[in-house]
Amino acid sequence: MRRVGVVSLGLIGGSVARRLVAAGVEVHAWNPSLPALEAAAVDGVVPARTIAELCAAEPDVLLLAPPLRAMADVAHEVAAHVRGGTVVTDAGSVKGAVARVVREAGLAARFVGAHPMAGTEQAGYAASDATLLDGARWALTLEDDTRLDAFCRVAQLVTGPLGGVVRVTTPAVHDEAVALVSHVPHVVASELLRLVGGSDHADLALALAAGSFRDGTRVAGTHPRRTEAMVTDNAAAVAPVLRRAAADLVALAERLEAGEPVGSFFDDAAAVRAGARVAGPDDARTTLTLDPATWQAELLAHPTSLVVGADERTRTLTLTNP
Amino acid sequence: MRRVGVVSLGLIGGSVARRLVAAGVEVHAWNPSLPALEAAAVDGVVPARTIAELCAAEPDVLLLAPPLRAMADVAHEVAAHVRGGTVVTDAGSVKGAVARVVREAGLAARFVGAHPMAGTEQAGYAASDATLLDGARWALTLEDDTRLDAFCRVAQLVTGPLGGVVRVTTPAVHDEAVALVSHVPHVVASELLRLVGGSDHADLALALAAGSFRDGTRVAGTHPRRTEAMVTDNAAAVAPVLRRAAADLVALAERLEAGEPVGSFFDDAAAVRAGARVAGPDDARTTLTLDPATWQAELLAHPTSLVVGADERTRTLTLTNP
Repeated sequence: MRRVGVVSLGLIGGSVARRLVAAGVEVHAWNPSLPALEAAAVDGVVPARTIAELCAAEPDVLLLAPPLRAMADVAHEVAAHVRGGTVVTDAGSVKGAVARVVREAGLAARFVGAHPMAGTEQAGYAASDATLLDGARWALTLEDDTRLDAFCRVAQLVTGPLGGVVRVTTPAVHDEAVALVSHVPHVVASELLRLVGGSDHADLALALAAGSFRDGTRVAGTHPRRTEAMVTDNAAAVAPVLRRAAADLVALAERLEAGEPVGSFFDDAAAVRAGARVAGPDDARTTLTLDPATWQAELLAHPTSLVVGADERTRTLTLTNP
Repeated sequence: MRRVGVVSLGLIGGSVARRLVAAGVEVHAWNPSLPALEAAAVDGVVPARTIAELCAAEPDVLLLAPPLRAMADVAHEVAAHVRGGTVVTDAGSVKGAVARVVREAGLAARFVGAHPMAGTEQAGYAASDATLLDGARWALTLEDDTRLDAFCRVAQLVTGPLGGVVRVTTPAVHDEAVALVSHVPHVVASELLRLVGGSDHADLALALAAGSFRDGTRVAGTHPRRTEAMVTDNAAAVAPVLRRAAADLVALAERLEAGEPVGSFFDDAAAVRAGARVAGPDDARTTLTLDPATWQAELLAHPTSLVVGADERTRTLTLTNP
């Protein structure tokens, strides 16, 4: 990996840039506002004045990391200027919506969707940190026409200089999964605050709030516009989960009102927690040479496998299995 | 404060005992199982073989810290043996239910309810820690017949050797407030896990889970029986909040399905978070000498005040105000 381009130096784009610079990769970046770009230049990033200039550097991989709301504009601008062998990836938290705008922009042939499962409730280059991505799990998404060499290159970038590990999935399954482990948890954290705000005893409640409330509402500190964009762009996956949650909470309320036992509600949750067993980077490793005819189905058949290494030249992946 | 008794050396009782020993207070304790009591004896606690023996030591304050399910039995046993000037308090997370069993046991005249807003998802003496209560907020609850001297003594214990601060409230208001900031957050954390467990993509979802899910579900690591007891004993306050949450989540799902904007949902939450302004221990202090005729109403009129010091002899409190 010789050269990587980054569009937008926010929390994720900035953290990627910092990490790659530290790993000795040549990083070019464009950012809509100049101060962050200037700060990044001081940190070793080669600044581009426009997306066209960024594309002209022909990076091996170009990472699109703008806010979701700006993804369509960015994708069209990139499509107008990208050239050579550049593979395009992104860091958006909703993959179906991104895949659509990328396809509409005509970038599908060189695109592999990505989503690093890392972040804080903060935003902006100033909050970015090379260590934010330490060991991060990245979802990489496949579509029918995803190119094997493009996939291997992005996997090599993630598992190499970015120091992450990869789960392979499709945009639709990714979006269902992150609705469960990210978007709905964001909604629920906000709802906990709204419930307190709607109470006659909000002041006392906040005065008594301790660790369980602090932890349970931490992600509600995410900027409202960012959370709004996530759940809106992933509405198709988020809405049914919200309805399921509502039904479960009403059922629990009914049991409590009837004086019926409610222990199974918490036992079920504990079982999910206890049963969580997914491959880690330290599990036994196998090497898989990808067959151009079957590689997609092969990877999607093992959603709990973890890609911990990739080599574009030989088209081999190093995998761990739970 | 010369001598304090502790019934049950779990996470909270053990942490209280450790902290008081470290502060030079003579601590006597009884625990239903012997190993924890023996461990506490090594740590400087005077072990009592029975609750009767513990009561015979005539501690200035006797703290009841058993699991909620055992509170009624403990209260009756204490009522049969308590004597002298001992004031009884507790550490239960539901105050209405505890107030009832204490009253039924005949202990109301010497009782002041207490709830330290501290804890972890762990349990038992081995998990207890003198620092767990550092600066903890304790709710102290008043009933019509709460004795002024008993209240002052417990407030003195909490703000003195226990290193905490006090919010004064009633059992009913406490229970509504902790339903909002503790019990419902526990339910919601469990529900987030249950939603994942009910998904076809649970493995991938858990594999992709990052900080927001880890934080949002941390308290779901609480033992299911403990959470069950909390929400069952506080069902009257918890059930309506669950119904309100369910209605809010359905309303949000409807807006998402209709493609309507949902930003206000997250703005409302951010406003509650930003508006949280409650007295801290470093705010300007005032001294209040309690009038035996009006002290209860006076304290309850200022739910956001924080008691940071108390003197039983002079019946004065040191307060901060937001």
